[in-house]
Amino acid sequence: MLGSLPGLGNRSARRIALYLLTRKSALMVPLGHALIRAAEDIKTCGTCGNIDIHDPCKICQDVKRDSSKICVIAQVSDLWAIERTAAYKGVYHVLGGLLSALDGIGPEQLNIASLTARVENEKPQEVILALSATVDGQSTAHYITDRLTSASVDITHLAHGVPVGGELDYLDDGTITTALRSRK
Amino acid sequence: MLGSLPGLGNRSARRIALYLLTRKSALMVPLGHALIRAAEDIKTCGTCGNIDIHDPCKICQDVKRDSSKICVIAQVSDLWAIERTAAYKGVYHVLGGLLSALDGIGPEQLNIASLTARVENEKPQEVILALSATVDGQSTAHYITDRLTSASVDITHLAHGVPVGGELDYLDDGTITTALRSRK
Repeated sequence: MLGSLPGLGNRSARRIALYLLTRKSALMVPLGHALIRAAEDIKTCGTCGNIDIHDPCKICQDVKRDSSKICVIAQVSDLWAIERTAAYKGVYHVLGGLLSALDGIGPEQLNIASLTARVENEKPQEVILALSATVDGQSTAHYITDRLTSASVDITHLAHGVPVGGELDYLDDGTITTALRSRK
Repeated sequence: MLGSLPGLGNRSARRIALYLLTRKSALMVPLGHALIRAAEDIKTCGTCGNIDIHDPCKICQDVKRDSSKICVIAQVSDLWAIERTAAYKGVYHVLGGLLSALDGIGPEQLNIASLTARVENEKPQEVILALSATVDGQSTAHYITDRLTSASVDITHLAHGVPVGGELDYLDDGTITTALRSRK
């Protein structure tokens, strides 16, 4: 069962199993209880799709956050990545994935309808599409832009360019071209 | 807590946590219960140190296995590795580690006393030292050989040489030297 977790093959799962068995009372049983408790306590926020022990989540309930900005991300892990920077003070909307023709993921499997409803009701000033710079990410961004044209809301994207600390020599051509074109 | 497992950093632990949270009833709660149950059910064999739901373990209880051969290994994972080959039909003795001056692991922390007692009582024909070809492995092997000189038992080691399928070009000098010296 450990081997079915992402990033773990048979070998690493065996290693973890042995590690746990030599630390039964210190780690194995507490981890088991922690998993069961977390599964009961952690809810998906009905507003933004974030996971938290509260619904609505801490971010949606926080009055200090600017609810006129909605940042659209694919996964909760993207939300965590943005929160770690502490550079964003708006709210979020988690899609739960990206449109993908290859994987057969259509708009109805993502939280896109709830996003358009939310934009209509809450009338935010800005929707920031913080989606990956991949084919799936960009087609999802296009689709959402299409669906939100009727609403009077600014739709922005993350800037593309050279990563901070990145050496030009090691960057792919697409990134360099984009960084050149959007030079300031 | 997931991040304290071997082989998992913060990033992979976060990834696993999110993966579990999207599969609460299918994986997260069953995994929690499985961990608790396994911690209760799995015992360490009092004879050989293997882990199993029975004590003595399945291998020690198996009358088809040749108890005149005891294979000494450092960890249960080494036992599993040897069992996967199906090439060995004797019994085992798990040391629980290797002597290590650097990590401060002395003979009293390993199952060496139980091994010498077992050799005296059961009087096996052969003790196979299947320990790593590292400094720690070899010093542990020397120590055990020393302790067993009084008992009339054959002490053998795993053969060193070129791994099956290994290309000479990619092997270290020590292995090639050993393989040359023990040529047949």
